[in-house]
Amino acid sequence: MPGAGKTTVARRLDSRIRTQGLPVEVLDGDMMRTILSDGFGFTTEDREATVRRIGFVCSLLSRNGIYAVAAVVSPCLDTRQEVRLMHEPGRFVEVFLDCPLEQRIQRDRKGVYQNALHESSPDFTAISDPYEPPVRPEIAVRTDLESVDQCVGKILTWLRQTNNLKAAAAAGQLV
Amino acid sequence: MPGAGKTTVARRLDSRIRTQGLPVEVLDGDMMRTILSDGFGFTTEDREATVRRIGFVCSLLSRNGIYAVAAVVSPCLDTRQEVRLMHEPGRFVEVFLDCPLEQRIQRDRKGVYQNALHESSPDFTAISDPYEPPVRPEIAVRTDLESVDQCVGKILTWLRQTNNLKAAAAAGQLV
Repeated sequence: MPGAGKTTVARRLDSRIRTQGLPVEVLDGDMMRTILSDGFGFTTEDREATVRRIGFVCSLLSRNGIYAVAAVVSPCLDTRQEVRLMHEPGRFVEVFLDCPLEQRIQRDRKGVYQNALHESSPDFTAISDPYEPPVRPEIAVRTDLESVDQCVGKILTWLRQTNNLKAAAAAGQLV
Repeated sequence: MPGAGKTTVARRLDSRIRTQGLPVEVLDGDMMRTILSDGFGFTTEDREATVRRIGFVCSLLSRNGIYAVAAVVSPCLDTRQEVRLMHEPGRFVEVFLDCPLEQRIQRDRKGVYQNALHESSPDFTAISDPYEPPVRPEIAVRTDLESVDQCVGKILTWLRQTNNLKAAAAAGQLV
């Protein structure tokens, strides 16, 4: 959801993976929207198309041994499932950053919740638009209770336990 | 231009690079349009946005040592220059596939020229819409006079001479 800490966690994860000598790209929703979806709005359809595009780019990177970290609001279960299926089995890792609304509003540096609560944004995820939480994400963290390092630690542990970090290093992807 | 042989040359190049054990992705305009620009039309603006998106995806792949082969109609000098600047210096290779109109019409398996000449396609590159040929492309070939293997050979020679093939192999990108 907006304000849950996606960009912060993605950047820290990027730097931790990079430190291990592995190739990594962060695909940030805000950044991606300007290039992959210029001219697009924030309707449900436009937003899901953007999620699909970012997912596609991630799948291209992933199948070439590049870690792709997507930091993006993706409210629909169906679209996330679609993006999961674009990837080789076991390569798509859904990380659910959970955070209560009050906390998200408090953190709201971009003023997006202020706008949404005053109804100037008709299509705002988790306010006027539905957010469908993941049913069984690979990783779930509470960003109001866990630190950025704890969140990133959970992700790295998962990658190690599933041989996703070791596998890449063994395949000669060290740069 | 449409019908100049982009897809055919791209596929052969893909297989030649892959044979050398190097990682490569082909980004084909027709294929890309369905995922990167669904809902988009064929106006100049829409088409240039698609070129920019494909260029952006190529730059992500390229900076991670993946060969990205874009087979795409890109009529505007300015957009091609924009895409060139997204890449690290020396990594963007412009290949101009030149071919006379009569030959392109003869090859027209998809019937796109038939439509364009009968005015049912208002925005068709090199018929109703301008095509700005490259001023100084890295490589230029005449696909009506040179075979697919000759075209691909020219590209591979250029890549070798500029250390673009050797560099990738030396960087441990062998898969």
